[in-house]
Amino acid sequence: MKIRILKHDLNESIQHVSKAISSRTTIPILTGIKLDVNFQGMTLTASDTDISIQAFIPAEDNNKQIVQVERSGSVVLPAKFFVEIIKKLPSQEIEMEVLDGFQTLIRSGSTDIQMVGMDPEEFPVLPSIEEDQIVTIPGDLLRNMIKGTAFSISANETSPILTGVLWNLNDSKFKFVATDRHRLASRTVGLTTAEDIRFSNIVISGKTLNELSKIIPDQNTHVDIVVADNQVLFKIDRVLFYSRILDGTYPDTSKIIPTTYKTELVLDTKKLSDSIDRAYLLSREEKTNIVRLQTMEDGTIEISSSSSELGKVTEQIEVVQFTGDPLRISFNSKYMLDVLKVVESEQLHIGFTGAMSPIILKPVDDSQSLYLILPYRTTN
Amino acid sequence: MKIRILKHDLNESIQHVSKAISSRTTIPILTGIKLDVNFQGMTLTASDTDISIQAFIPAEDNNKQIVQVERSGSVVLPAKFFVEIIKKLPSQEIEMEVLDGFQTLIRSGSTDIQMVGMDPEEFPVLPSIEEDQIVTIPGDLLRNMIKGTAFSISANETSPILTGVLWNLNDSKFKFVATDRHRLASRTVGLTTAEDIRFSNIVISGKTLNELSKIIPDQNTHVDIVVADNQVLFKIDRVLFYSRILDGTYPDTSKIIPTTYKTELVLDTKKLSDSIDRAYLLSREEKTNIVRLQTMEDGTIEISSSSSELGKVTEQIEVVQFTGDPLRISFNSKYMLDVLKVVESEQLHIGFTGAMSPIILKPVDDSQSLYLILPYRTTN
Repeated sequence: MKIRILKHDLNESIQHVSKAISSRTTIPILTGIKLDVNFQGMTLTASDTDISIQAFIPAEDNNKQIVQVERSGSVVLPAKFFVEIIKKLPSQEIEMEVLDGFQTLIRSGSTDIQMVGMDPEEFPVLPSIEEDQIVTIPGDLLRNMIKGTAFSISANETSPILTGVLWNLNDSKFKFVATDRHRLASRTVGLTTAEDIRFSNIVISGKTLNELSKIIPDQNTHVDIVVADNQVLFKIDRVLFYSRILDGTYPDTSKIIPTTYKTELVLDTKKLSDSIDRAYLLSREEKTNIVRLQTMEDGTIEISSSSSELGKVTEQIEVVQFTGDPLRISFNSKYMLDVLKVVESEQLHIGFTGAMSPIILKPVDDSQSLYLILPYRTTN
Repeated sequence: MKIRILKHDLNESIQHVSKAISSRTTIPILTGIKLDVNFQGMTLTASDTDISIQAFIPAEDNNKQIVQVERSGSVVLPAKFFVEIIKKLPSQEIEMEVLDGFQTLIRSGSTDIQMVGMDPEEFPVLPSIEEDQIVTIPGDLLRNMIKGTAFSISANETSPILTGVLWNLNDSKFKFVATDRHRLASRTVGLTTAEDIRFSNIVISGKTLNELSKIIPDQNTHVDIVVADNQVLFKIDRVLFYSRILDGTYPDTSKIIPTTYKTELVLDTKKLSDSIDRAYLLSREEKTNIVRLQTMEDGTIEISSSSSELGKVTEQIEVVQFTGDPLRISFNSKYMLDVLKVVESEQLHIGFTGAMSPIILKPVDDSQSLYLILPYRTTN
C-alpha cells in the first residue's frame, strides 16, 4: 500500500470508526483500525465485536482527488495513537506507505512517523448481511427516537436484555421501548416502508444506539436500516454501522401501562421542570431523590421534598387543567427530570391511577411518546 | 435577620466565597457559609482553615437597593445546597428570614424553602491582619504570574513547601518561583511600591493561588496584597481572600540556574510546541514522556520519540538562531509542553550546558520569565 490522502477526509473517517474502539478489549488486533486501499479508495474498519464500523473514502469525490493510490494493500494500525497523531499532522496532505512486516511510514510536512502495523488477515471479517429488507428513516428522527427512549434503559448488567432498546415494526409503525423496571419510555413513528416489512423483539444495546447517534450528521440525511438474524446494519452516507442484536426475550410491558386515569393534570413543561429541579437538589442530598406531588384545594399542585439535615423545599405550580380525584404521590425526581429533559412539547399531560400505580406522562403535542414512572411507596 | 435581596448579587457573592468550601472537611460548621447582616449590607464568609473568603454585598450600590434590611442578624447555611438552590430560584427577588434555632426561611416566587441553619457563634473568627504594608498589583498581571509559575509546583505532599509558590519582594521587584525538583518556573515583575516594603520566603499554596485567580475579574481591577506573620490577605473589590503562608524554608534555587551556555537556540514557539506535541503523543504511550532533541549538521534540529510497541516520530524544525556546540539531549516532553503553553512570546531562547545539565527556556520578548527543565539521563 502506498498512497497520498487528504488529512481532513482521513481524519473524519477515523473519527467515525474510532467509536467502535474499546479501551478494554483483550484481543490485540481490535485495538487497531484496519485500512484497505484499492483504486476506488480507502475503507477503514474498527470493531469491538459488539459494534463494527466501516467508513469509505472515495479516491475522487465531486471531481476532487482525495486519495491518490500508487499501490493498493491493507494494514491494521494502533488506533489510539493513529487517531490522535493524524489530527495533529502539520500539512493537509499525508503520504502513507506500508513496508515489509506491516511497518508503516506516514509523512506530512516535516514530520516522519514509523508506525508498527499489524497483519490485516488477523482482523475479524464483518458479518455479511442480506439487504433484501431495508427500512429508511430520516437521520434526525432516528436520533430523536434514541434520545427519547435510551435514557430509560437499565444500567444493571444482570438483566442484559433491559440494557437494550426494544424495536418493533408493524404496519409501517416503528416503535422504540426502553425500561429498567422502575420507568419506561416509548416512542412510535410512522414510516413509509413496504408494508410487508415487519419485525418484533429486536433489542439493541442503548449504549450502542447513543454511539450511533453521534455519527448521524445534523444535515438532511437518511439512515438505511437492515435487520438480519443477529445483527442490525445502519447505513449513513459512506458509513456502515453494524450492531449485535441482544439475545433474549424482552418482557411484555403493555400490561403495566394503565389506559384510564383517576386523576389527570395538564402542566406547563418548563414550570414543572424548574420546580422539580429545585426539589431534586434537596432530595439528592438524601440519596433517595424522593419528591412529593400533591393536588391542593385551590386547584394548584404542590411539589415538595425534605431532608432531616437540610430542610424542606415547597413549590406551588398552577395547572392548566385538573380533572379527577385529589392526589398525593411520591416518585424519584431524577427519573422525572430525565423525562422532562427530552419532552419538547410546551405542555405535558400526566395521568395517575392512585398513589401506588404507575404515573403516565405524555407530551400534549405528541401522541406518539409515552413515559412511565413507578411511584415510591412512602409511609406518609 | 430578615431581608430582601437581589438574586444576582447574592449569587455572585456566593460563587466567590464557595471556592473556600472543602468537600472533605471534618468540621461540620465549615460545610456552611456564614451570613452576617447589618444595615450596611450582607457579609458572606466561608473557610476551609487554609483559605478563608469573605464577600460584602452593600445595602445600596450606585443608588440601587440591593439588600433591604428589616432585621439584622447572622446564620450559617449548608453551603452545597445553598449554592445550588439560590442559582435556580424562580424570581430575581429573594426574601430571607432566620427564625428560632437558626431555622431559615427563603422565599422566591412560588418557591418556599426551610433551611436548617447553624449557629454563627461556632464559625471560626477570621485572622485580624495589620494593614500597614500594602502591595498593589494589577489583577491581570497577578493572574499571569500565577499562571506562569504555579504549574511547576510539586504535587507530592511529602515536601509540603514545594506545593507552594515562593514570593520575594525586594527593591520593588516582585518575584514568583515554583519547582518540583525536576523543573522550575520563575517570573519577576516591577511594581511601584513604597521602597521600604520587602519580604522574602513567603510561600503560598499553588492550589490556593489557582483558586484566587478564578476570583480576579477580567476587567481592570487592582489587587491589594497584605503580607502578615502567617497569613496573606488579598483584597479584590469587595472580596477578601485570606491564605495561610506555608511553614518551612524554601530551598535556594539560584545555584542550579546556569548563566553561561554551551549551546543556544532561538526557535519559533508555535512550531516547537506542535512538534513536541506530536512526539509527546507517542512518548506518552511509553509512560515516560521522553523526547529527544538533537542539533543536525544542516543547522536544523530534530525532535524525536520512539516506542517499541508503536513506532517512532521524527520532526525536523528550522531554527531562527543556533550558536555553540552540537547537542543531543532527552527530556520530559510533558514538562516542556507545560512551559510552551504559558509562553506568550513568538520566539523562545533555549540554553544548554550539556546533556546532563538543566535546560533553560526564556521567552525572547520577556526577560522576566525563566523556565528550567532537568534532562533525562539516557544511555544512547
